[in-house]
Amino acid sequence: MNLLLIEPREVGPEGWVRLTGRRADHLRRVLDVAPGRKLRAGVLGQGIGTGRVTAVDPVSVELVVEGIDPEADRVAAGPPVDLILAVPRPKALRRVLRLVATLGVRKLTLTNAWRVERSYFASPVLEPEAIERELLLGAEQGGTARLPEVAIERLFVPFIERLEAEPPAGRRWVAHPAGEAIADMASDRSDETLLAHLAIGPEGGWIDDELGSFDRAGFRPVSLGPWVLTSEAAVAVALGQLHLLPTRS
Amino acid sequence: MNLLLIEPREVGPEGWVRLTGRRADHLRRVLDVAPGRKLRAGVLGQGIGTGRVTAVDPVSVELVVEGIDPEADRVAAGPPVDLILAVPRPKALRRVLRLVATLGVRKLTLTNAWRVERSYFASPVLEPEAIERELLLGAEQGGTARLPEVAIERLFVPFIERLEAEPPAGRRWVAHPAGEAIADMASDRSDETLLAHLAIGPEGGWIDDELGSFDRAGFRPVSLGPWVLTSEAAVAVALGQLHLLPTRS
Repeated sequence: MNLLLIEPREVGPEGWVRLTGRRADHLRRVLDVAPGRKLRAGVLGQGIGTGRVTAVDPVSVELVVEGIDPEADRVAAGPPVDLILAVPRPKALRRVLRLVATLGVRKLTLTNAWRVERSYFASPVLEPEAIERELLLGAEQGGTARLPEVAIERLFVPFIERLEAEPPAGRRWVAHPAGEAIADMASDRSDETLLAHLAIGPEGGWIDDELGSFDRAGFRPVSLGPWVLTSEAAVAVALGQLHLLPTRS
Repeated sequence: MNLLLIEPREVGPEGWVRLTGRRADHLRRVLDVAPGRKLRAGVLGQGIGTGRVTAVDPVSVELVVEGIDPEADRVAAGPPVDLILAVPRPKALRRVLRLVATLGVRKLTLTNAWRVERSYFASPVLEPEAIERELLLGAEQGGTARLPEVAIERLFVPFIERLEAEPPAGRRWVAHPAGEAIADMASDRSDETLLAHLAIGPEGGWIDDELGSFDRAGFRPVSLGPWVLTSEAAVAVALGQLHLLPTRS
């Protein structure tokens, strides 16, 4: 836990918060907090500030959150990235959910694809509470108070047709070994908005029909490198590279 | 398994190979190979070519490997990266080992650091056979026939003092939130050799003494981005960014 995250509904008058359970245990046992201790704290969707501990007992920690500032959330303040990801196997999905939250992805769309196994959609990891739990852990790791929006698209064709019909807001890219490097694509397009939509396929890749659909919806192929990557590795490599793109200030 | 990997000692006269066990099972059950089928195959440390299946029976698959070419290994042909990584917890270490092989890291040095728990060095994942197994799985994933060299440094100070005494071959960087972005560092240094040595700390970070040692050994701080990353995520983000550096041809 690199950042204590608090939900807005947990914050009472004058910033008063009483925590129990996992977070209180961490504050007591790992950080060994005592009244007066100050630590970085975020309020979800609002920003990052300070939590001043006011009371500690065996089951709870009380604190007052102060100075919550959206600008202090450096991860959320970065250029927005919307990720479209073919649903990976459940074990990888859990880690991918944490990772997208850590990396400050703005929206994650988990989509079906020809090479996604049907059983993946039955995974308990796709239940809203499970998604929320993994996102929270990832945001605590990354140090951000903004959780990604997550959408699940069980049918690929209506999803991509909807994207095709929408006017594209920002760059649209699909990761593909035959594409150009992200840096080269970006330098040609410095006049576009900062928002990047990046689609990452299943571990067996998108099929030609799917690549055709992405093409019609304006997604240009970009290569992340010479490797064949797992979903997790592809997400981290891609976000690392997108972070290096020149941005308009 | 995106690439069938064969050890040099398994290759007989005229490229003849007989596989049993995990790889034979995969070829039979997942790829459903029959005599005459050709598939990409790599010989470890030598390169990538073609495996032509000559016989299939319930326990083994026989094939002939042909046209092994080091240039066909696009991952190994990339700019060399040597990674220095503070030993992560065993569960993460297993995935990190696969990841460095997938990403074609040339050498991985797993080092002790103040914030590395002593118990991590007792992990069975650090035994040579376990390391080799994870590297193989990672290389099969990434599509490379070169495994990273792995060194283990149980004492940080003698290790960093040895580096300090060596003439630096290539860039030396240490990942640190206060550093400059990799792309900015690289543009100042385009006359250096391509080899990059990158040090990534434990999840709690390097302590000031360690950062001082890296500084004396010529490691400049580079920032990977605004996030606080797990070891795994840091490795993938860093290798993705290093891949985008301009290279001398």
